Amino acid sequence: MEGGSICSTVSSLHCDTAPLKIVRAQKQYMTDSLGVQYLDCVSNIAHVGHCHPQVVTAGKNQMATLVSAQGFVNDSLTKYVKQLISYFPDVLSVCYLVNSGSEANDLALRLARSYTNRMDVVVFDEAYHGNLGNLIDISPKMFNRMAQGKREFVHVIPYPDTYQGSYRDDDPQAAEKYVKEADRIITQATCNNRQISCFISECLIVNCGIVVPPRNYFRLLYNLIHEAGGVCIADEVQTGLGRTGEHFWAFEQYGVIPDIVTVGKPLGNGHPMAAVITTQEIADALGEYYSTFGGNPVACAIGMAVLDVIENEKLIQSAKAVGKTLLENLQILKTKHAVAGDVRGMGLCLGIEIVQDKCSRKPATELAQSIVYRLKEDHHILVQVEGPSHNVIAVTPPMCFTQLNARSLFNALDIVLSTCYQPGTVCTNIVDAQGSRSILSMEDLDSLKKENVEGPEAKRPRTSYDDID
Amino acid sequence: MEGGSICSTVSSLHCDTAPLKIVRAQKQYMTDSLGVQYLDCVSNIAHVGHCHPQVVTAGKNQMATLVSAQGFVNDSLTKYVKQLISYFPDVLSVCYLVNSGSEANDLALRLARSYTNRMDVVVFDEAYHGNLGNLIDISPKMFNRMAQGKREFVHVIPYPDTYQGSYRDDDPQAAEKYVKEADRIITQATCNNRQISCFISECLIVNCGIVVPPRNYFRLLYNLIHEAGGVCIADEVQTGLGRTGEHFWAFEQYGVIPDIVTVGKPLGNGHPMAAVITTQEIADALGEYYSTFGGNPVACAIGMAVLDVIENEKLIQSAKAVGKTLLENLQILKTKHAVAGDVRGMGLCLGIEIVQDKCSRKPATELAQSIVYRLKEDHHILVQVEGPSHNVIAVTPPMCFTQLNARSLFNALDIVLSTCYQPGTVCTNIVDAQGSRSILSMEDLDSLKKENVEGPEAKRPRTSYDDID
Repeated sequence: MEGGSICSTVSSLHCDTAPLKIVRAQKQYMTDSLGVQYLDCVSNIAHVGHCHPQVVTAGKNQMATLVSAQGFVNDSLTKYVKQLISYFPDVLSVCYLVNSGSEANDLALRLARSYTNRMDVVVFDEAYHGNLGNLIDISPKMFNRMAQGKREFVHVIPYPDTYQGSYRDDDPQAAEKYVKEADRIITQATCNNRQISCFISECLIVNCGIVVPPRNYFRLLYNLIHEAGGVCIADEVQTGLGRTGEHFWAFEQYGVIPDIVTVGKPLGNGHPMAAVITTQEIADALGEYYSTFGGNPVACAIGMAVLDVIENEKLIQSAKAVGKTLLENLQILKTKHAVAGDVRGMGLCLGIEIVQDKCSRKPATELAQSIVYRLKEDHHILVQVEGPSHNVIAVTPPMCFTQLNARSLFNALDIVLSTCYQPGTVCTNIVDAQGSRSILSMEDLDSLKKENVEGPEAKRPRTSYDDID
Repeated sequence: MEGGSICSTVSSLHCDTAPLKIVRAQKQYMTDSLGVQYLDCVSNIAHVGHCHPQVVTAGKNQMATLVSAQGFVNDSLTKYVKQLISYFPDVLSVCYLVNSGSEANDLALRLARSYTNRMDVVVFDEAYHGNLGNLIDISPKMFNRMAQGKREFVHVIPYPDTYQGSYRDDDPQAAEKYVKEADRIITQATCNNRQISCFISECLIVNCGIVVPPRNYFRLLYNLIHEAGGVCIADEVQTGLGRTGEHFWAFEQYGVIPDIVTVGKPLGNGHPMAAVITTQEIADALGEYYSTFGGNPVACAIGMAVLDVIENEKLIQSAKAVGKTLLENLQILKTKHAVAGDVRGMGLCLGIEIVQDKCSRKPATELAQSIVYRLKEDHHILVQVEGPSHNVIAVTPPMCFTQLNARSLFNALDIVLSTCYQPGTVCTNIVDAQGSRSILSMEDLDSLKKENVEGPEAKRPRTSYDDID
């Protein structure tokens, strides 16, 4: 047996250029094996902060008391579910608990298909809804890269990207025009005897690069879907629990009520749990449902603690205030730096789109990646890229992210953006707006990567963010 | 909002007749809200015993240190996976970690389909492989009860039940005959231009009623599948980690090596984690795989503790010894009681099939359910029923189940079996071999149910198993 030949499930987020071995984390900070502390703008899953003591205590106590009680009545389940659905509009009154966002989206599809007795799904181009067979089928981000291609029951509509899309921020009719596009595609499908079961999307479209649809977009689109006989599923796996600052759920920003909502691991601050919330009518169509482990006592105890912390620490109000400041600051960077093409988002779900120049808006993929790398190496700030061109720097930190953290990020970004495209610096493959190059060469990256893998003799400087917290 | 109208994910195991509110559990014992302690012969998921201190400590410490490190290098992942695959034949060298047995089986299907570039799946009749869209499609236990029915890419073969099936224990050629049946169905499919991608099954078939296939069955069947161009998936979600007493995995009992193996939550003693193990060649066909949370530090810490406990406490050897004694004792019950039709299983995965009489072997479903009920009410022992006719009493306790526990179960079963079909007792709907009736009437059940829901004034007697542990 080759012991080392395992298929790790870890993504290549920071591993490609310089693997980072995180050994512990508290609040919005992660510490690596060398003792270096990083400001975490990545882990939206650690919703109320890494290892929040209240959540840890709830989990610890329950783990020592009762983990598995499958098949038995469970008070904590009823209590937790009651609490969770109190955050939804009245009509969304039925809740299923499962183990992951993927399981939630899979169940949402089943609910939609059972209720409508139809098969077809409308999705955004470049959308990603999970890593299960049925979800890959409806995730263009996945199936576009695979031999299987698009299934006949999937209908892909353009997402309303008013920065890179066909209809842009200067068009007051952008929403209507995107919906018209969707209408055309759905009508075509109907003509081909396809019947729409559902539309599934994020409302703040994180996977497509933190795209913020126009205000009236979802009202128009949901109407269209309902008229076509389908139901609307809001995937709140990345955007739920107050991340958008204004409301508990991103769909609320758009004045719509989905027929089905899915929520992921932020529910458990990282503990594997997720939920599907829907109407009684839709739930009735599915009939009996059984999950061995969804709604187990540990998940319920942790989930309840997370909801309590969100309330007690006023994390939604905080996300709103901090997000507002950060967005305003990022707007300054946009006016200051040629490659900061667009800045957008809500609450603590923000994106900076890195482009070659502001006229062409051409994505500067490698530059974005080198910015991520520089933020990590020089400033000990962790961000990642999102979007189809991997050129949108995403800021989705734990919700306890502070104003001071926002300033640290702003300052660091300002420095990195000021230097990353200076003319005359050595680089490969990255040409910015001015025809200059990033200061990092691929050789530099290679040697840095090697150094990190092999472990440098000299430890990197220890930086602590504690003093500014 | 109707607070109470939730769709609980709890099964109706003991809820139908008398809901049991379990509030804590240790080792092989569960305690309800009235303080009554039960001997747990149900929770195979609490593999090394409920709330095992070593597992709880590992989980607690890791939860307080680092829960979510998605996208970063994770030493504990490498260490754990290395340890886990050391329990497999050398050729099974690649491991994926996911959140649930369902996610594992979904991934196994994807692996098989990617590798063979084929779609079709061969399954046992009445099989159940999980509660996700793709798994319902291949689980006759599910799709048989649903409007959708069987998909064209699913081929159902009879499971080799030598007690109730077409070829029985008195037929030395039973294995060959069941394989011939499978051959006929697969050949038919091939003639219809269907191409077999894989066969998926449990090797000790728990979901069909703890059915033990003949010794040479899987060798013959796996050959057949391979000849048809498919791969073989062993679903070890319920049977893995030494439950069968002799080996670490049930497939080893049959001298076969599957191409893909799936393992479920017993891996984490109830913590939501699961794994898929396969060959490098098959993994290569899938390419990149990403799970947000599979292989997270908490899962790895808990998983490692579970493997350690299995070794340190010699739980497999114990399961073998205790299982052997219990099986021998159950054989005595079989000779003694007219309704104990068959007794079978391996290690701590045993079944007692309750029948109307031993000649007709007709399933006595309601009688089996009343036995379950009596064991719980009178003897504080929890078992459940399995199998298509819900007449097989399944004994799948935590692996720390002792010889004394086995004796308690034996004695209780002996008493219950001695009284449950006495002629002249009042009953409804349950007619046993002698034309007599169970001593429990439906009215009795109703009143007991009501009493339990409303909470009886007088507490039930407190029984502790501590003294005999």
